[in-house]
Amino acid sequence: MELELKQTERLDDLQCRGYKIIQEVDGFCFGIDSVLLANFAKEIKKDAEVIDLGTGTGIIPTLLCAKTNAKNIIGVEIQKQICDMARRSIIYNNLEKRFQIKNIDVNEIKKEFLPHSFDVVITNPPYKKKGTGLINEKSKKEIARHETTATLEDFIKQASFILKDKGEFYIVHKVERLVDIFYFMRKYKIEPKLLQMVSPKIGKEPNLVLIKGIKSGRSFLKMKPTLYLYDDKDQYTKQLKKFVENKQK
Amino acid sequence: MELELKQTERLDDLQCRGYKIIQEVDGFCFGIDSVLLANFAKEIKKDAEVIDLGTGTGIIPTLLCAKTNAKNIIGVEIQKQICDMARRSIIYNNLEKRFQIKNIDVNEIKKEFLPHSFDVVITNPPYKKKGTGLINEKSKKEIARHETTATLEDFIKQASFILKDKGEFYIVHKVERLVDIFYFMRKYKIEPKLLQMVSPKIGKEPNLVLIKGIKSGRSFLKMKPTLYLYDDKDQYTKQLKKFVENKQK
Repeated sequence: MELELKQTERLDDLQCRGYKIIQEVDGFCFGIDSVLLANFAKEIKKDAEVIDLGTGTGIIPTLLCAKTNAKNIIGVEIQKQICDMARRSIIYNNLEKRFQIKNIDVNEIKKEFLPHSFDVVITNPPYKKKGTGLINEKSKKEIARHETTATLEDFIKQASFILKDKGEFYIVHKVERLVDIFYFMRKYKIEPKLLQMVSPKIGKEPNLVLIKGIKSGRSFLKMKPTLYLYDDKDQYTKQLKKFVENKQK
Repeated sequence: MELELKQTERLDDLQCRGYKIIQEVDGFCFGIDSVLLANFAKEIKKDAEVIDLGTGTGIIPTLLCAKTNAKNIIGVEIQKQICDMARRSIIYNNLEKRFQIKNIDVNEIKKEFLPHSFDVVITNPPYKKKGTGLINEKSKKEIARHETTATLEDFIKQASFILKDKGEFYIVHKVERLVDIFYFMRKYKIEPKLLQMVSPKIGKEPNLVLIKGIKSGRSFLKMKPTLYLYDDKDQYTKQLKKFVENKQK
């Protein structure tokens, strides 16, 4: 179909079932972290009801539509203009029946949804604590990167509110926040069950963590082998290519 | 010097400054986890006052005597007969001036030591929760492997009691308990600051975690590259050899 693109926007091909995402040329664009998280979560059950907290331009739900049989995915995003981009991408990708956007603050989830109403919560929250790091001049980018409107604890607390008992929680974050994530997950009764470290290369420190938790799960953490992104020739590793490959639906 | 070895005992060479350790042929013998932990902690400061909770036959303090300039190391061990072995090893290694054994329960530390009196607490606690896994028939082994007398939470709580502010805490454990460790460390004000995963081989899941915490430290976790023990020919990796090599004291 015909697509309205504003002058400040571009259309990025996800190289996955033909889906594309509208992003701002000059704005916060999705990174490999969102792609890794969507692939980490691609074993979610058929017909799952899914919610993505802080969905941005909708990258994670779009990939989940491509890679899973999730029935219904809600993307929650506080920024109105980004919601508008996400909604136009949904129409472009013909995903209106499976993927909807809600323009609300993560902390207002109780007003919109019933408790224990989702099978899966997924989130790639802002990474930086408020008042740390370089604050980006453009406020849209700042909200996407920093905990300006909701903290990591808020994201986990709200996830716990809307998750069904034994429901699944998926999160990607920087290694430096791993203690915070585990602490808050346990505090809000989402037990971390699976951890995968992501490292740029063999011999380098891991810098990202992929975590799966289960609401009211029992305490026992499993790990997957560390995921390395680049080989010694700076090419994507075979391990990464396998990690992101599409399963037959 | 002449050494009294009982019929049930053997003398194991640590391949490190000539130090040896008495162990029971049929008892709980130290593993690579203790060797890794001692090496992970070998940057501890000169003249540090160190305590090892659940020291067993004294493997960790003996390695720290070899690899660091720690001034005084106390090994706490609940089992009287194992304390006796450790004391004879200390005499054999001529370490009486730097390494002493206290035959007490970890939970009785308050009776023996003042709060905030150590620079470093190190521990390789029992791995298995009470009532889980196969219970070893021999009770000495069982106490060393299972949380029969003190739980993981007890070890961390007592560590916090005797640690100075900004003092260092080192622990090795199974991956499956990583959430518990982080949760209890934060609960008892020892902030996890450094994490290294240990994995048998590239492509395999990490199975051990090495953690350094700081009493009253601020929240920010760093990671070291995953430590791989064996290469694809089942030989020790160069990375492991470098990890355990002795620095010039």
